[in-house]
Amino acid sequence: MIKVSVIGATGYAGAELLSILYRHPQVNVVHITSESHTGEKISELYPHFNSLYENELESLKDIEAIGADSDFVFIALPHGHAMDVALKLKELPTRIIDLGADFRFGDTSIYEKWYKVEHIYKDAARVYGLAEIYREEIRTAKIIGNAGCFTTASILALAPLAKHHLIDVNSIIVDAASGVSGAGRGLKLGNHFPELYDNFKAYNVAHHRHTPEIEQAIEDLSGMKTIINFTPHLVPMSRGILATCYANLKSDISAEMIEPAFQKMYGNEKFIRILGNGAYPETKFVRGSNYCDIAWHIDERTQRVIVLSAIDNLVKGAAGQAVQNLNIAAGFEEDTALDFVPIYP
Amino acid sequence: MIKVSVIGATGYAGAELLSILYRHPQVNVVHITSESHTGEKISELYPHFNSLYENELESLKDIEAIGADSDFVFIALPHGHAMDVALKLKELPTRIIDLGADFRFGDTSIYEKWYKVEHIYKDAARVYGLAEIYREEIRTAKIIGNAGCFTTASILALAPLAKHHLIDVNSIIVDAASGVSGAGRGLKLGNHFPELYDNFKAYNVAHHRHTPEIEQAIEDLSGMKTIINFTPHLVPMSRGILATCYANLKSDISAEMIEPAFQKMYGNEKFIRILGNGAYPETKFVRGSNYCDIAWHIDERTQRVIVLSAIDNLVKGAAGQAVQNLNIAAGFEEDTALDFVPIYP
Amino acid sequence: MIKVSVIGATGYAGAELLSILYRHPQVNVVHITSESHTGEKISELYPHFNSLYENELESLKDIEAIGADSDFVFIALPHGHAMDVALKLKELPTRIIDLGADFRFGDTSIYEKWYKVEHIYKDAARVYGLAEIYREEIRTAKIIGNAGCFTTASILALAPLAKHHLIDVNSIIVDAASGVSGAGRGLKLGNHFPELYDNFKAYNVAHHRHTPEIEQAIEDLSGMKTIINFTPHLVPMSRGILATCYANLKSDISAEMIEPAFQKMYGNEKFIRILGNGAYPETKFVRGSNYCDIAWHIDERTQRVIVLSAIDNLVKGAAGQAVQNLNIAAGFEEDTALDFVPIYP
Amino acid sequence: MIKVSVIGATGYAGAELLSILYRHPQVNVVHITSESHTGEKISELYPHFNSLYENELESLKDIEAIGADSDFVFIALPHGHAMDVALKLKELPTRIIDLGADFRFGDTSIYEKWYKVEHIYKDAARVYGLAEIYREEIRTAKIIGNAGCFTTASILALAPLAKHHLIDVNSIIVDAASGVSGAGRGLKLGNHFPELYDNFKAYNVAHHRHTPEIEQAIEDLSGMKTIINFTPHLVPMSRGILATCYANLKSDISAEMIEPAFQKMYGNEKFIRILGNGAYPETKFVRGSNYCDIAWHIDERTQRVIVLSAIDNLVKGAAGQAVQNLNIAAGFEEDTALDFVPIYP
Repeated sequence: MIKVSVIGATGYAGAELLSILYRHPQVNVVHITSESHTGEKISELYPHFNSLYENELESLKDIEAIGADSDFVFIALPHGHAMDVALKLKELPTRIIDLGADFRFGDTSIYEKWYKVEHIYKDAARVYGLAEIYREEIRTAKIIGNAGCFTTASILALAPLAKHHLIDVNSIIVDAASGVSGAGRGLKLGNHFPELYDNFKAYNVAHHRHTPEIEQAIEDLSGMKTIINFTPHLVPMSRGILATCYANLKSDISAEMIEPAFQKMYGNEKFIRILGNGAYPETKFVRGSNYCDIAWHIDERTQRVIVLSAIDNLVKGAAGQAVQNLNIAAGFEEDTALDFVPIYP
Repeated sequence: MIKVSVIGATGYAGAELLSILYRHPQVNVVHITSESHTGEKISELYPHFNSLYENELESLKDIEAIGADSDFVFIALPHGHAMDVALKLKELPTRIIDLGADFRFGDTSIYEKWYKVEHIYKDAARVYGLAEIYREEIRTAKIIGNAGCFTTASILALAPLAKHHLIDVNSIIVDAASGVSGAGRGLKLGNHFPELYDNFKAYNVAHHRHTPEIEQAIEDLSGMKTIINFTPHLVPMSRGILATCYANLKSDISAEMIEPAFQKMYGNEKFIRILGNGAYPETKFVRGSNYCDIAWHIDERTQRVIVLSAIDNLVKGAAGQAVQNLNIAAGFEEDTALDFVPIYP
Repeated sequence: MIKVSVIGATGYAGAELLSILYRHPQVNVVHITSESHTGEKISELYPHFNSLYENELESLKDIEAIGADSDFVFIALPHGHAMDVALKLKELPTRIIDLGADFRFGDTSIYEKWYKVEHIYKDAARVYGLAEIYREEIRTAKIIGNAGCFTTASILALAPLAKHHLIDVNSIIVDAASGVSGAGRGLKLGNHFPELYDNFKAYNVAHHRHTPEIEQAIEDLSGMKTIINFTPHLVPMSRGILATCYANLKSDISAEMIEPAFQKMYGNEKFIRILGNGAYPETKFVRGSNYCDIAWHIDERTQRVIVLSAIDNLVKGAAGQAVQNLNIAAGFEEDTALDFVPIYP
Repeated sequence: MIKVSVIGATGYAGAELLSILYRHPQVNVVHITSESHTGEKISELYPHFNSLYENELESLKDIEAIGADSDFVFIALPHGHAMDVALKLKELPTRIIDLGADFRFGDTSIYEKWYKVEHIYKDAARVYGLAEIYREEIRTAKIIGNAGCFTTASILALAPLAKHHLIDVNSIIVDAASGVSGAGRGLKLGNHFPELYDNFKAYNVAHHRHTPEIEQAIEDLSGMKTIINFTPHLVPMSRGILATCYANLKSDISAEMIEPAFQKMYGNEKFIRILGNGAYPETKFVRGSNYCDIAWHIDERTQRVIVLSAIDNLVKGAAGQAVQNLNIAAGFEEDTALDFVPIYP
């Protein structure tokens, strides 16, 4: 049994993390924090936790003590705050899994440019927390920068094509759509029920912060400088991300070369289900699970490949991935507590 | 490890059963049947099962052999078919948990009247499968008639009041609402997406077949002949039932006598969460879980009590309850494989 | 052409009013007010009005001038504010249609008790704005207290039965459900999209303020002191109300006496569609229209009648009804600008 | 007053057409046909039409008589049937507006290739029914091939850029999403409520039949042979299409040249609302109306323009556009009966 704490538990990702950890047989959740609700119980904020969690929410002010009492600390705070927490835990053996963006970038100047905030812990020893690609580095990392939701779906869809040089990486366009839980629990008019119900829209066109995160991974895999388009949309549903990824096939690439690339990279991956050529992932087929379902289509007319991938944004796109990273880092079976069957219908 | 089979696995309740059993550590699913899809894999019908179930769907024609190879058989067929299956397994030690209505009634003439079908196995040794009320009988039953979805929510809401004679049972009105999965996977215009989306309606007013099932339990608990109104509504959502139950308080009953009745009956129940006086269960707080959340309100002006209860119709209202019954009947811990945290949001 | 103004146009009812008035051939909208957005255009708050309304939002501070410039003033403010506006317009010939609750009650002590606010204009000459019942009084009224949304559906469902003494009025239970626009545009966690989506719940059990409004009308129609139960529910949809109304039939009343009561009262009503015995109104069949669809069911077992009625809460339940009242009061054809075909699917 | 008939009125587009025509002051609907429901009333199939349409559905067998009795005939049949109807009306002065695909293509070999059916009326005098581009030809056309839903949104988004040679037309990728009414009223598992609710998916990738229709218009406008990618998605909502259109800006094109192109082409168009650079159309802002809202974004990093457009698929994408075409062809005011304010929320 190890001891873990959740810093910032009252957002949707934090709550999902508590849901998963509740069933983890090798984990004790010892501290849960919330600045806005210190002293309350999590079940007062999330009645679905009634009878499950009796912990009182603590304050982040005691982070050093919390850290000293924890083998792992999950951070589910808005970006910009995890750097501060990590600095305070620098000297402790405590390891950190950050669900935000602070530790996702190798080059912190990219982070500073897109997130408009100064990075105060530039030399942190960290790894990008996308297990299927960076598993070995995750095993021993002090700080794991858990991959973002859109980025997880997008990178997993494109990684085999980029790695095996099957596509022109600068032709990549990722057109993705997410359920509303991805926008968090904070109130705003655009997510007020009557405004969003029976509605569909794009947002942050050409400026979404997941863009450079995708580019970083594609560059790392392909060895090529990469600039892409990423466009998110909001779907009137609670959970789920579908990424529709377009890329021009290189001139000498034939359709038959696609499948082996996916099989080679993901053939033994527990959480990736390769649906194959011509298939259609649906967000509901992975809802509530840690799966990423992937399929692709070849358009012979335009010589483009269209890769489709689906995840649950709160599981494989956030809390599930974080626990997967924990399992790897702690030396547990990678799917411990992640054996969810997707909830359907 | 025991061996179980699922007869009729392609409806929503059957599929949910497979989801739950997948994680049951003491159960092997040995046979899965479907008459309409014999020879196919369940994952071809339900792609969310990809990589989870590789079994080929068998035919019911071999039910005796299937029965002989199974310790327990779950039946998730439309009403009228389980009687036939049970007759064929009569001489075997195999025990049966029927998710349909065939074995829910002590008096089969009530079944015949409401279901318009002759009962061909009237003397079957059976018990009503609502664990919180009939747990002892379930332990040793040959046949368990798993309680219906609306009825589970309604009976659990009213049972303490009926048992302790706090209400006039003939004043009971149950006004309930269900997500659409309760109507099954069969196609019909009323459940075609554009027809139901952004829509709300009642159906089967004064004639729904769950009415006599509720009456039977209330009579059993109160010792009083009971005739009630039950009105179901359809909510444009996938899962969940909320029952709003009205009853006149007996003249000498005060508000303070309600809570002890609930505590006495459910205080130690793992799957019932008593939210208490003045609270509001929501279907989302129990979604994907085996919980039944219950609260009540007293209207001093009309001397009525209004009890609210929420369940997931496919879990506590069907497959979860069936596994709970299995656990009791097989002597397992009652919550084995049912430790789901509700999925939220 | 008459001149009308809309006081408090930025809520959903106010916006719906502007939608309807836009197409009214005998009405000029001369002033639109908003305290929170004075100086802005309505299309900045509601982009669906782009290119339709260019008016700048004014302040309520100039209400006397606005009143003097208007034949009719619609008030779509939260309760408690219309009294003040009406007092300021007392000496003007301007007539008032209030969409809130301030002028709905004949006995202001009931208003004060349920709304927890002192009534400052108790002797206002006013009429309850439910055209099908109070049409004659509306023609000449100075102040029209437009009926509430749940109350419109409930009263129209029960009025013929109460008026013709077919039911025991004190046995009435109204169990109703509304789309979320009924809760307004103000942000709160319960109406945040991910919280409400795929969810269903009751609220304000035994305490909803529409209760005494229904009671007042039933008393007026039946001549009997009336105390009822009214329970609202929230449906994850934008628009629509369905009321399921239960009442005990008087002992000498037979099923055949129901239909004539409805026909006599509503046979010539343009906006009431009598679907008849055994039928099922659906909220989608009236969406975007001023119709109220009504059907009923007789339960011979319990001697209860169950009446179902459906309206669009923002149209017949608010803005449409207000324009219907305007048409009556101004001497226009009653359905002017209200000839919407329900939008389906 | 002119006489019009609707051939095939029981699909969603046909029903929407009846909704719009009901309020058209210069149109009498004289015949409505349905092969599957001949002899019934439309309100039996669509109860929202109760009290509005009393016509009995006729059979297509008498199409010549129906045609002779009509100034205009709307055809809302599945593709492949309108050719046959049109041939039978060839010698009559009756004019035809086909909501299907039979008369959308100048080159019928494209139709035959994508729709897998032989075209039997290749020399029909016809025009593509997208009023903002082909208005003059529509005025006098015998047969109008009403533009498709996805194509209307896509072509209107891209037309100014293609016409003014601002983009490389072969770099166009249209990623679009539609509400489920676009898939029609026919039952299929994929559109069964529980399957689609809280779900999102792509379909017909690289093979959707609206692809060549978009290509034809872009070629016509740009004078360049055009091959594009078009990917449709299904959104769990009833109505609405959002098209997200990507194209590479030509090397000498600057961001400032975009707006004038849109203004020049659409500045005087009643049904196109130019939201401008950096704005976000939402499907709900146009729901129930004939508007197409358009905005665009420039990505300086990738030198791509992303154009967003939103329509109601059943109005501007089908029935509203058909009535707009009727108004032009019959010499009425173009917006007659199309003055809907979008229904919001």
